[in-house]
Amino acid sequence: GVFKPMKQTMKKPLVREIMARNVVTIQQDSSFHEAAKKIMESTFDHLPVVSEDSKLVGIVTAWDISKAVAQEKYHIVKDFMTRDVVTATTEETIDIAAHHIDQKEVSALPVVDNERRVVGIITSNDISKLLASE
Amino acid sequence: GVFKPMKQTMKKPLVREIMARNVVTIQQDSSFHEAAKKIMESTFDHLPVVSEDSKLVGIVTAWDISKAVAQEKYHIVKDFMTRDVVTATTEETIDIAAHHIDQKEVSALPVVDNERRVVGIITSNDISKLLASE
Ligand SMILES: C[S@@+](CC[C@H](N)C(=O)[O-])C[C@H]1O[C@@H](n2cnc3c(N)ncnc32)[C@H](O)[C@@H]1O
Repeated sequence: GVFKPMKQTMKKPLVREIMARNVVTIQQDSSFHEAAKKIMESTFDHLPVVSEDSKLVGIVTAWDISKAVAQEKYHIVKDFMTRDVVTATTEETIDIAAHHIDQKEVSALPVVDNERRVVGIITSNDISKLLASE
Repeated sequence: GVFKPMKQTMKKPLVREIMARNVVTIQQDSSFHEAAKKIMESTFDHLPVVSEDSKLVGIVTAWDISKAVAQEKYHIVKDFMTRDVVTATTEETIDIAAHHIDQKEVSALPVVDNERRVVGIITSNDISKLLASE
């Protein structure tokens, strides 16, 4: 049943063990329309935004696209992305990531390496699936 | 800690006990632009679509808005909503709802009464918060 918890004795999994690696990113000077297309093509709703040297500088979701539509402001990604990104790191345990997801009320965290390059993504769905599994 | 489970002896909560009741809905003949505005104003990413007699006929999310942008198809809600809505009912236990959320890979379920009127919404975040609480 879904309420069967991870055994207390079980070692907590690390972010890198359950993160998805096939994360699609976008450059910050891309258009509003390109961002919408990438979100649609991606498995994830969250599109990490990267600088020219591949470092994380923001995040864009379908919600941001919808907001831009609502406000009729169709700028480049840099102008409507969220800059203050909540991230996870590969060596964190997933309860830390779960805690950040809860606290910040987001549904996914880009996973970054020491140099702030995006190496994966972890979603609240991945985490609840793990908690729900028997 | 987030891995403290619900006690096995604890009575499973019902959907109506944890659902949000302040759900914003939209009529099926509303414009693409109105839908984007309502999503932005709503606390939830999910906008249940209702018929004139207030019955659930579909659902629209920011993702659908983003998809419409990507495809440059700006129709009325009826033409881009998802018709096959996964729902929850007030008297279900939340593990049933959690199971549907997992299985169908959605992040929220509109909660309907016997006459298919929308009375609330339950999100995967609500459920993981409950699982995560001490
Ligand atoms: C208000 S939330 C609500 C929508 C949805 N529940 C979600 O989590 O994306 C949407 C905003 O959160 C931002 N966001 C999503 N993931 C984020 C993250 N990991 N760090 C910071 N902001 C994030 C998006 O850019 C968007 O502006």
